[in-house]
Amino acid sequence: MKKISNLYGGIEAGGTKFVCAVGTSPHDLREKIQFPTTTPEKTIEKVIDFFKLQSSKEPLVSIGIASFGPLDLSPKSPTYGYITRTPKPGWTMTNIAGLIKGALGIPVVIDTDVNSAALGEQKWGAAQRLDTFIYLTIGTGIGGGGIINQQLMHGLIHPEMGHVRIPHNCKSDPFPGSCPFHGDCWEGLASGESIEKRWGRRPEDIPLDHPAWKLEANYLSIGVANLICTLSPQRIILGGGIMKNPNLLPEMRNQVKDLLNNYLSSSEIIDKIDYYLVPPVLEGSSGVLGAIALAQQFS
Amino acid sequence: MKKISNLYGGIEAGGTKFVCAVGTSPHDLREKIQFPTTTPEKTIEKVIDFFKLQSSKEPLVSIGIASFGPLDLSPKSPTYGYITRTPKPGWTMTNIAGLIKGALGIPVVIDTDVNSAALGEQKWGAAQRLDTFIYLTIGTGIGGGGIINQQLMHGLIHPEMGHVRIPHNCKSDPFPGSCPFHGDCWEGLASGESIEKRWGRRPEDIPLDHPAWKLEANYLSIGVANLICTLSPQRIILGGGIMKNPNLLPEMRNQVKDLLNNYLSSSEIIDKIDYYLVPPVLEGSSGVLGAIALAQQFS
Repeated sequence: MKKISNLYGGIEAGGTKFVCAVGTSPHDLREKIQFPTTTPEKTIEKVIDFFKLQSSKEPLVSIGIASFGPLDLSPKSPTYGYITRTPKPGWTMTNIAGLIKGALGIPVVIDTDVNSAALGEQKWGAAQRLDTFIYLTIGTGIGGGGIINQQLMHGLIHPEMGHVRIPHNCKSDPFPGSCPFHGDCWEGLASGESIEKRWGRRPEDIPLDHPAWKLEANYLSIGVANLICTLSPQRIILGGGIMKNPNLLPEMRNQVKDLLNNYLSSSEIIDKIDYYLVPPVLEGSSGVLGAIALAQQFS
Repeated sequence: MKKISNLYGGIEAGGTKFVCAVGTSPHDLREKIQFPTTTPEKTIEKVIDFFKLQSSKEPLVSIGIASFGPLDLSPKSPTYGYITRTPKPGWTMTNIAGLIKGALGIPVVIDTDVNSAALGEQKWGAAQRLDTFIYLTIGTGIGGGGIINQQLMHGLIHPEMGHVRIPHNCKSDPFPGSCPFHGDCWEGLASGESIEKRWGRRPEDIPLDHPAWKLEANYLSIGVANLICTLSPQRIILGGGIMKNPNLLPEMRNQVKDLLNNYLSSSEIIDKIDYYLVPPVLEGSSGVLGAIALAQQFS
């Protein structure tokens, strides 16, 4: 009798690197490779080669893609599954889902990196048993996604939470912001890229007692408090390289409470903020595991 | 044979006035009364008297309440259906849904005024056939609710969209904001109350060519652009007394496009903004019709 496969593929398609893996869960991630993101042709070819090899060992049920965006996620659109107008050079209008599906002949599901990570955290991580929560990544850029009433956030396109405008005191912080579209939007003020441009060095090279981090905690807290008022999530998960500074999350918990000023009288926020603003559990593999969760849920 | 009733009751529970009605749709609103909001006891007594009289003529299936907040909407909570910590004097911890249900002995459904209005607009108004959209009211305060993936927005509590922080240029607008909790949050800068406090006269007395309206359009546009980035709605409906200024919505459509700066490459926003930012269709009866829609959908 032929064994029925329950093996899935996951692709973390990032602007800097791609991670591909096969597995079924965080405890069963069997093969994993990663390589830098170059041109769409070369990068996608590597993806296809990896999964062809893996499929020859054991067939895959389907593949999930957790991708940088913006993406076309409207199932009826002729460009469904494309990376659309990305600032990433060479990648505009790349049919990432279609090319991979065509080459491998198995179902392919695609969503944003942050929505996929949210799904992974709900299945195996920091959002188990929640039906409405946000996943934020604070890295080179700022991205946000999430699940509302048990469904991934899509709507017209998909959220682009990094591009909201927040208060910016130009006197105390004259940096004009780094976003090529909006200048001093949230991402323009608080992303890793903005930190590097403002202070002239990479975030990982800035000492923990440098004023850069106080400013960063402030901008991040404002954005997070705004998300709480807008969406009323049951929890917010904060991932990404910038959040590796161990002082940031504790400081943000204080500032977010101060900003809300007891207006939202929920003990989840007032008494249990440590369980309300949390790091991801799957950090490090959140992209590729999110992609596997996506494949498992939707194919 | 006894006639089976399909008649519903609706209550618009506002901070200034209550509106009660019975009916089945916008074209069949049979009885409607309104009275000022005084103490919870006196106000709720009037509500009960009205529906007792109506029920004696024809039985009601159920009653919906579209209420000012904050509300406890967690079905498992011991204070489900209460108005909780409202700044409205005397109304804190009012068991509005329970008192009405207890007195009338029929099912009662409650949600926020804005969520209810969203539901009414989806059923009969400006959001038909949409599954993800926002309803904003710009009046004495600023409130927002909506439907995401066909479900009303709740989460931890319910959205309090008026209390997000937005950029505030204190040089060109030294007004410190009117929100007792947050000072210059969105509501503190752009609500009807803030306009009155900043300019020393009521919004309806300010001429259309006064600089107040340019500033107002600017603050409203920032908040709306932020909602688009955060939630990616298919449409935003803008109701409330302040939106009665006929120049405001056209000006906002221009400014929101400028703020987004083509980052979200959706033709719904870029080419069809007139159909993307729209007034409510049920304006005037949106609260009470939303309450009837709520009763019809959930009881």
